Amino acid sequence: MILDFHFDFSSPFAYLAATQVEAVAARHGAQVRWSPLLLGGLFRDLGGVDVPLFAMPPPKRAFIEADLQAWASWWGVPLRWPERFPVRSVLALRTTLAHPEPEAYARRVFHAAWGEGRDIADPAVLVGCGADESVLAAAPTMRDALRARTDAARARGIFGVPTFVVDDRILLWGQDRVPMLEAILSGWNPPATVAPRPPRGPR
Amino acid sequence: MILDFHFDFSSPFAYLAATQVEAVAARHGAQVRWSPLLLGGLFRDLGGVDVPLFAMPPPKRAFIEADLQAWASWWGVPLRWPERFPVRSVLALRTTLAHPEPEAYARRVFHAAWGEGRDIADPAVLVGCGADESVLAAAPTMRDALRARTDAARARGIFGVPTFVVDDRILLWGQDRVPMLEAILSGWNPPATVAPRPPRGPR
Repeated sequence: MILDFHFDFSSPFAYLAATQVEAVAARHGAQVRWSPLLLGGLFRDLGGVDVPLFAMPPPKRAFIEADLQAWASWWGVPLRWPERFPVRSVLALRTTLAHPEPEAYARRVFHAAWGEGRDIADPAVLVGCGADESVLAAAPTMRDALRARTDAARARGIFGVPTFVVDDRILLWGQDRVPMLEAILSGWNPPATVAPRPPRGPR
Repeated sequence: MILDFHFDFSSPFAYLAATQVEAVAARHGAQVRWSPLLLGGLFRDLGGVDVPLFAMPPPKRAFIEADLQAWASWWGVPLRWPERFPVRSVLALRTTLAHPEPEAYARRVFHAAWGEGRDIADPAVLVGCGADESVLAAAPTMRDALRARTDAARARGIFGVPTFVVDDRILLWGQDRVPMLEAILSGWNPPATVAPRPPRGPR
């Protein structure tokens, strides 16, 4: 089985998922493909997907922040709010595409951003994650590649991160769908409608 | 332990939770208190909580509808989209407050709305759920009581449904938090920050 993992470093939900995705896949013999996208660009293209965290009513924002900590505690991983928020992730995403070992690098960047709360818009932080001079120099050339990956994600029905796609067939959004993902990788067949579908008109 | 279950019949997520909440509580010796609120009123008071389903981009709406079916399949319960959507739930909520057996009645109303897809704004449907003439006649007198319950829910930090509150201390939003709820009822202590908190200013 192939498990596509669509992410942007700007999302704490994607960070939480990133801490689990390899172990989940390994338990079920699936292969993970890490697929970066620019969430801000995806949201602009789709229009009106989500109320951003900073614009939510205080009780909802308070719950979501607490819920993130609960998931981190549940999975035994650190979670520290980044010193700069919203996170500007574009350089980190482009360097991921330029990196010779993108998945290991992406895990280190996620940890820096959300495990340690560091500012991944700072090239020095990315150097600490393993981006050398040649990777940083190549980042600007990855602009179109990142755009193309974001467009491809939208074309397959993705509207947020983290999103898991199993065998190009079943799409699951959110770190909180990891238990359901495990059931699917174990052989549970969800209703066919879980598969990505073409957009429809209003009900 | 006391498990408050805050709901509105207008939400399919609350329906899914309602199919599970008694069994979950029974497994852990907790007592459920069913607490209706008017979600539309809560949203108006809070402002800008959620993008309504019908206003979401098509791929997100498609996923959420499929995800609802996946949860229904996961839990082995029926889910049928109501013939009238959005659901006008105010009469059903007021009759719940007027009913001598509100919890059994609420379960039947949820089943009519989301298990059978019936229009619970129709008094005849509510009669079929067990609302007799006296209950229907008392419904208008429950207007203030429903308003008070909605205000009380907001005062304790609730911003959506379904919301579970354990021992007036831990707040969990969403049917997808049922596994975490079970862990809490089994003795897991989430980070203290999961508790409802007073609103804070912008970060």
